[in-house]
Amino acid sequence: MSQHIYMNAFTQCCPTPQSEGQWKNPRDRSVPGFNDPDFWIDLARTAERGFFESLFFADVHGTYDIYGGNSDAGLKHGVQVPGNEPTVLFPLLARETKQLGLIATYSTTYFEPFLTAKLFSSLDHFTNGRVGWNVVTSYLSSAQRNGLGELLEHDARYEKAEEYMNVCYKLWERSWDDGAIIRDFKNDALIDIDRVHKISHKGEHYQVEGPHMCTPTAQRTPFLVQAGGSPRGLEFGTKHAEALFTIIQNVNRAAEMTNQVRQYESIAGRDPGTVKIMTGIGVVVAETEQELKQKIDRYKDYASVEGLLALFGGWTGLDLSGFKPEDPMDAFDTEQMQYFSTFFAEMDPTRIWNFGDMCNYMKLAAISPVITGTPDQVADELERWVDEGGVSGFNLIPVDQPGSLADFVDLVVPELQRRGRMKTEYPKQQLTLREMFSYEGNTKLPSTHPAKQIER
Amino acid sequence: MSQHIYMNAFTQCCPTPQSEGQWKNPRDRSVPGFNDPDFWIDLARTAERGFFESLFFADVHGTYDIYGGNSDAGLKHGVQVPGNEPTVLFPLLARETKQLGLIATYSTTYFEPFLTAKLFSSLDHFTNGRVGWNVVTSYLSSAQRNGLGELLEHDARYEKAEEYMNVCYKLWERSWDDGAIIRDFKNDALIDIDRVHKISHKGEHYQVEGPHMCTPTAQRTPFLVQAGGSPRGLEFGTKHAEALFTIIQNVNRAAEMTNQVRQYESIAGRDPGTVKIMTGIGVVVAETEQELKQKIDRYKDYASVEGLLALFGGWTGLDLSGFKPEDPMDAFDTEQMQYFSTFFAEMDPTRIWNFGDMCNYMKLAAISPVITGTPDQVADELERWVDEGGVSGFNLIPVDQPGSLADFVDLVVPELQRRGRMKTEYPKQQLTLREMFSYEGNTKLPSTHPAKQIER
Repeated sequence: MSQHIYMNAFTQCCPTPQSEGQWKNPRDRSVPGFNDPDFWIDLARTAERGFFESLFFADVHGTYDIYGGNSDAGLKHGVQVPGNEPTVLFPLLARETKQLGLIATYSTTYFEPFLTAKLFSSLDHFTNGRVGWNVVTSYLSSAQRNGLGELLEHDARYEKAEEYMNVCYKLWERSWDDGAIIRDFKNDALIDIDRVHKISHKGEHYQVEGPHMCTPTAQRTPFLVQAGGSPRGLEFGTKHAEALFTIIQNVNRAAEMTNQVRQYESIAGRDPGTVKIMTGIGVVVAETEQELKQKIDRYKDYASVEGLLALFGGWTGLDLSGFKPEDPMDAFDTEQMQYFSTFFAEMDPTRIWNFGDMCNYMKLAAISPVITGTPDQVADELERWVDEGGVSGFNLIPVDQPGSLADFVDLVVPELQRRGRMKTEYPKQQLTLREMFSYEGNTKLPSTHPAKQIER
Repeated sequence: MSQHIYMNAFTQCCPTPQSEGQWKNPRDRSVPGFNDPDFWIDLARTAERGFFESLFFADVHGTYDIYGGNSDAGLKHGVQVPGNEPTVLFPLLARETKQLGLIATYSTTYFEPFLTAKLFSSLDHFTNGRVGWNVVTSYLSSAQRNGLGELLEHDARYEKAEEYMNVCYKLWERSWDDGAIIRDFKNDALIDIDRVHKISHKGEHYQVEGPHMCTPTAQRTPFLVQAGGSPRGLEFGTKHAEALFTIIQNVNRAAEMTNQVRQYESIAGRDPGTVKIMTGIGVVVAETEQELKQKIDRYKDYASVEGLLALFGGWTGLDLSGFKPEDPMDAFDTEQMQYFSTFFAEMDPTRIWNFGDMCNYMKLAAISPVITGTPDQVADELERWVDEGGVSGFNLIPVDQPGSLADFVDLVVPELQRRGRMKTEYPKQQLTLREMFSYEGNTKLPSTHPAKQIER
């Protein structure tokens, strides 16, 4: 039997988040759609029409201000700004769909763990277990200047995040036993206080007494996602996450990376294959070669290279405003740039990349690989990533919105369904997001997960 | 013409928040409704059916643990625990209703102003301007032990809150000019960067650079509510708020208090009568005296005095677990208790109150005055509060949910409509919450509001 392909639709409550300039594309409705619930309902329904497992919202709390040493380019091109808080949409989107999972980025740096635990429990209650948390430790220094947390050195951030997770786990998994609401008329007790526990966490970074504010939800701990690509991030992710959102340049690298994740999994003592590896991918699909070419050309015409470089600058800390198109990729002699030099070279090892090539490459879906073709060709290539690269599925990075997703749903999904790679219907009874990414009945974290192993 | 009576429905995402024990009442659906979006949709639709201006959600982030020196009683009786985060419901509730305003308590102690400003702008976008913020500085020490902020001395909290408000005002009112999204194809500019401003706030408590993450909403600054009852709280409230949620014992005291607010308003340089004074009130209404008596008796039978004292303990810091029913009200010789001794005495000055009287009194709607009667009698009394007491309207404290609200809507609202005190229809075109509490066209804060007077 062909391996199921898991699908997540990537988005953010802002203008097209990773394809700056598409606001000029008549097909794009993300401006001013990002302020309008109807736009998000339509996007969620489109993902559900295509039997996607989930819709994922990234989020940032500052402007992109590395490029040119200020936020001018970031603002001018609407680089992930303006942007709204996505979690407040989830109960609405859950009601307007039947099964689609809803995943939000939420930072361990900006929010106290007690409040994060409360928020995600509330979301899980109000969506009946369809919520995921993308755990991030945050990266924009502009957010710090907005009064948000201390921007710790990379590894220290992960140390602190470990403790943060433990606090959340204690609140979600240990604070309320099942059945604590007893409605005991005789003793006038709504709650059995012996089944509600303080967590009394006293750590290096956090002191949290508890109990948790919320009763156990369908999933208790929300479905956990992690998107860090660094070695330390990968270690953190394979320890805690149930799905990794990664960016991998090609199928060969995917095979290496997925092997590595399986090893880390086994080191962390988790069931092999538990962690779903969702790789970021852009897809441009059309029924004919001619339509496809037109679509790609139009996307590239509308792209704002300056905006993309502002985006890239925020991700890497590199100000690329001084570069010329013909500059070789290693002209910026930093570790980060060498990484990206190699990164892009591996996208197409048959040629020498210069800076102009990189800019051109980013026009479709920033640094994600892009598959272009007819439905058949796209499906072939996606299967290759899964069968040879070992990935579990894809994080679809949109170029325009909702066009990219709608194209994929209308053209690629039917082909993947014919090949037995995607569902043709959702389960009759609504499942939790954790079940959607594993199997029916698997609503809670397994005993091998670190959440289950911390001391009381 | 009779003065319009503004109506707000009070609630909290937990078991009946101010009438502990009603979970035993077969009419009450708040347990387990508080975890279910359908319960909240039903409540919001009921308020809208009764042409209420708004639905208000209180919120806490800790247990009530003064009574008996621990949280046993608070937990056992479900005193505002378990509880969910209410703001994530707002876009859903807005979609399932047409005009009802949605107000959330959000604490200046637990959330950074940059994030609070983003959250409320997002909510205002997603509800098309129907959102209000109840500014609180927080009071439960258990929240501090959950890792949430520093519990400052009362006045210092308000000092810090002043700066907090200034940061939010700068983000909401000064950061984005109208029309900053220009979609300038020629210059490849989505945004006119000259119309987006950093706020560069550097104060004693907060450093926030900006710009704000969100574009201006229908209201820019959400409708502002304040619920503090202390002199310092009242000063803060009359300076910043557009509606005050208060608790006043009787009509005479209301007249004094509303006069005082009008004076404070004038000192603060605000337009007289701008601040709507919404006083907390419980209402038990039935068509006949016999039904009424039955309903009151049933409410009192179901009430949990221990739970109410746990609630009272959290509000006042007083552990009343050692009291006996026959103890006089001033047996606890503290300033707080003297205040409440006077407070209760004024509810009914014709008798000497003892501790048992107080417990008995609290059975319906905790410390709020309660009006009981037939629809006609209730309407008479509400009119007296407005005409003689000078209040703008009422914050309806439920006994059971949704029963108390439904009773009011079905029985009292038609009578108030007949008397020209309440709307018989909502405006054809949806208005903002600010307009609902003032007049059509008044979507933004007026120039006399402090938000408009801070320096750039």
